[in-house]
Amino acid sequence: MSTPIVKPASITGFPEYLPEERLLEQKILDTIRSVFESHGFCSIETPVVEKLDVLLSKSADTNKEMYVLGRLQAEEKEEAKMGLRYDLTVPFARYVAQHENDLVFPFKRYQIQPCWRGERPKLGRYRQFTQCDIDIIAREKLALEYDALVPAIVCEAWQKIGLNNIVLQISNRKILVGFVEGLGIKKVGETLRILDKLHKIGPDAVAEMLQELGLSDKQIKSCLSMVTINTSDLSFADKVRALGIKNETLELGLNELAECVKLYASFCSVPYRVDMSLVRGFDYYTGTIYEIQLLDTEFHESIGGGGRYDNLASTMTKTRLPGVGMSMGISRTLGVALKLGLLKTGAKSPADVLVVNVDAADKTKMLDVAAKLRERGIKTEVYLEGGKLAKQLKYANDKGISYVWFDIDSTVKNMQSGEQQVADVNTWLPEQK
Amino acid sequence: MSTPIVKPASITGFPEYLPEERLLEQKILDTIRSVFESHGFCSIETPVVEKLDVLLSKSADTNKEMYVLGRLQAEEKEEAKMGLRYDLTVPFARYVAQHENDLVFPFKRYQIQPCWRGERPKLGRYRQFTQCDIDIIAREKLALEYDALVPAIVCEAWQKIGLNNIVLQISNRKILVGFVEGLGIKKVGETLRILDKLHKIGPDAVAEMLQELGLSDKQIKSCLSMVTINTSDLSFADKVRALGIKNETLELGLNELAECVKLYASFCSVPYRVDMSLVRGFDYYTGTIYEIQLLDTEFHESIGGGGRYDNLASTMTKTRLPGVGMSMGISRTLGVALKLGLLKTGAKSPADVLVVNVDAADKTKMLDVAAKLRERGIKTEVYLEGGKLAKQLKYANDKGISYVWFDIDSTVKNMQSGEQQVADVNTWLPEQK
Repeated sequence: MSTPIVKPASITGFPEYLPEERLLEQKILDTIRSVFESHGFCSIETPVVEKLDVLLSKSADTNKEMYVLGRLQAEEKEEAKMGLRYDLTVPFARYVAQHENDLVFPFKRYQIQPCWRGERPKLGRYRQFTQCDIDIIAREKLALEYDALVPAIVCEAWQKIGLNNIVLQISNRKILVGFVEGLGIKKVGETLRILDKLHKIGPDAVAEMLQELGLSDKQIKSCLSMVTINTSDLSFADKVRALGIKNETLELGLNELAECVKLYASFCSVPYRVDMSLVRGFDYYTGTIYEIQLLDTEFHESIGGGGRYDNLASTMTKTRLPGVGMSMGISRTLGVALKLGLLKTGAKSPADVLVVNVDAADKTKMLDVAAKLRERGIKTEVYLEGGKLAKQLKYANDKGISYVWFDIDSTVKNMQSGEQQVADVNTWLPEQK
Repeated sequence: MSTPIVKPASITGFPEYLPEERLLEQKILDTIRSVFESHGFCSIETPVVEKLDVLLSKSADTNKEMYVLGRLQAEEKEEAKMGLRYDLTVPFARYVAQHENDLVFPFKRYQIQPCWRGERPKLGRYRQFTQCDIDIIAREKLALEYDALVPAIVCEAWQKIGLNNIVLQISNRKILVGFVEGLGIKKVGETLRILDKLHKIGPDAVAEMLQELGLSDKQIKSCLSMVTINTSDLSFADKVRALGIKNETLELGLNELAECVKLYASFCSVPYRVDMSLVRGFDYYTGTIYEIQLLDTEFHESIGGGGRYDNLASTMTKTRLPGVGMSMGISRTLGVALKLGLLKTGAKSPADVLVVNVDAADKTKMLDVAAKLRERGIKTEVYLEGGKLAKQLKYANDKGISYVWFDIDSTVKNMQSGEQQVADVNTWLPEQK
């Protein structure tokens, strides 16, 4: 026997699941897919790599964390211009711009794929992480109704996954932008970026940073009053207006948000909070913005977010493509939910039944029994090679297979209760898990 | 409006599907998954990257085509040691060696993921291609029965995908190795590699290369007689023995193959051909080897293959891990099947029904209708924003949605036949597609 020379290790920050964890992940992904398809969203996937000019067309924030491709033995130069996607939005924008003439608008798609960022890993943050994005894209104009529909569908998915204790945080980018403009502040983007840090660094540090930016005490006080407005009903508009700032963009945002929130509440039972501190990092959002948070846990980052944008792919096509979309952080949420015990793993095998081999049974007959069970949708494994029964039962136990079928006398044993019964292969059903 | 500055293009050799093609791919992947899980195989996935020492531990053949990762703005050196996987076997070997103590043996897994090789793209060959691998791995010893079970399951999957006109080509590595050894040839590996080229370059060119290798005319004649043996029954053994070569390994191989073929034929209705010219490129196969071919098409490469190996991960663990496995080339087969018309795309949307908005209908009522249909498993899209009916019907038509539901009077229209009927939202069912 040769001596092992390579240490078998996966790479830090690149999560890998054991079979029982993967079964849970599959259940989550199946649920998401089934919800989105039930609403008529189609699946798309894009290659893991994009040309660098495409990746760099959107945001410079992620450049530092971007992975690029090379060749172990470089012969071609082309690969130096490819990078791994860092989100699903940029490849999606490229996809829509490229295939515009083959798509039917409004185009509704979901996309469940990994992305890569060379970040420092921690709970809920990985270098390879699976995202699920849904977006509705129109040509020229997309009705505001979709701003309410998208979070309703996403919340339905989170609920069906079993994460019921969640809240939709919602705002409209126009409100804060209009408010800041209405205050006479010139550095709008910088001000928003500082306000976005409220929950991380607290109001005092925010005030200090705003002061450094050159805002007056009155402006700072107004901003801080604004971002602490947080309501679970439509009273947010009055509270914002009570701050006395007049601005067209602000007014437009308040009306859009009121309309959107009203519709959302009629579409979906997941509670919402209108939160004026919500900013969302990405510059391309132009209207409604959202985040979804777990309630009553020690994990305070969002498990997803999104918003409305005026133009998906302005760098890649002349067609104006307004849309609204949301992301679900699958790897993040699975990591957190397992850590906090919100979701639990079960068996190590998808099988319901193990057909065991007693007294060197006829293998064709064993496979016949298994095939009959499978025809009725019962997942059935066969312990083909036989051997000691105790070993075969241990195998079923270790894998978490609920039933063992003795093919000789058509007896089925419930591995949990220990109960045995004579069963007909054409009618027997496992109990619901 | 800003001027587009980036050309939206995907990268040559990295296939990307339109929604209707992706729906077909999903159907294929769902079928494969359902077959494998019905047999108790669990899913695993590994990160796209592996450490270079892991990737390089197996084979040097692929080094030239390997993609490695770098950082756009390099700060850390670690990434220089990572590469994209070029197959699923190496990551699987690493996975089993790494998680050995958490797995239950025999370990049965399937894995459906993309791999990357910087090859020159052509029909059925891409730089990013999705593979599906299934393997059964034991500790120390794995019964020969599994050599018959694995191709039976894989053939079941191909049949359920709708590719019925296929053949399993089967041999046993020991036969050709033993035969060549029995002929007194010292350069066994080189001889096999040349014989492997038979179908590409023909017998004359093979003979010439064997002569250059130093084989005698008699040896060459024997080899060529051997590799033209091709039977659809158990007569292969007599035909091989009739060539008069005595060798223990050869005899062992003939017995294993006869046993395996007999079992396979009792497990599976897909025809087999015992083909003595089958070699399979990978050195690690030590027993049964297979390929699956499409019959009666102009595509003559295999759509999958595999075999038995003595030890999966000898470079990474001291535990002996014998196994048997097969690959299905998903991207290759989808590309070829679409090109040759063996499989066809359908609708551009998963939705069965579009609820249209007539006369500014109540949106909550429209969503109610849709929710009721969805509860009964009918995928239902809502044309939320309304507008001209003709536009809404065109949308359904363009996406290939079969039914349109008029929520006001609960009328459903079959878009293909044009037939309209009054329908109850609680009982109506679409016709089976």
